[in-house]
Amino acid sequence: MVRRMTKHFECATEFTLHVLGGKWKTIILCYLKEGAWRYGELRSFMPRLSDKVLTERLKELEVSGLIERSGGGAADAVRYRLTARGEALRSVLTAVYQWGERNAAAYSVEVENPLRGRKRKSS
Amino acid sequence: MVRRMTKHFECATEFTLHVLGGKWKTIILCYLKEGAWRYGELRSFMPRLSDKVLTERLKELEVSGLIERSGGGAADAVRYRLTARGEALRSVLTAVYQWGERNAAAYSVEVENPLRGRKRKSS
Repeated sequence: MVRRMTKHFECATEFTLHVLGGKWKTIILCYLKEGAWRYGELRSFMPRLSDKVLTERLKELEVSGLIERSGGGAADAVRYRLTARGEALRSVLTAVYQWGERNAAAYSVEVENPLRGRKRKSS
Repeated sequence: MVRRMTKHFECATEFTLHVLGGKWKTIILCYLKEGAWRYGELRSFMPRLSDKVLTERLKELEVSGLIERSGGGAADAVRYRLTARGEALRSVLTAVYQWGERNAAAYSVEVENPLRGRKRKSS
């Protein structure tokens, strides 16, 4: 299901930013472009984010058709993954991630990588 | 001059989003990647943005070293343009813009292009 949204944007950039919908949703999508993850795994990648906000953002991403849950049954078998519509954002998500990784040193900042050493899951 | 910023980010995506700094700054940068523009020109591209907010965002982008003013003297000769640091964001800005342009129809939205028919200026 795709969320009803404003039908008119003054430029393409504004539309993309509207779909991404802010910092945490973009970060969640960046993790999901690397594979399907359980709630608890996503939780561990974003320790500063509260359960309440993570749950809300996941719900919003589902409602807007960018992510979906797979593998029902036991709660800990459920994984979140990108839908085809979410996959379409991959070039944007990759550009955002790569710029940060490549330019951190120039800005004298450190960036962690919570996925370092994690096995990527395909679905 | 580069704004002092948090030195530590939990992932590269968060760092990039911090540098971009929200919707309007990203939109302004997207226009400036197409050329140098006068204040009044930028103003006309973003009619929903108030003078107060546009002025603030331009100042913030200058302070963070992503844009600069060129061609001093008469006020209407001043143009804003990307610095080398702002240019480094081009791949991100292009990905964000292109996704919006290519996917608008799939979301049943219309996006305008305020630069359509405008001659691009090189500096």
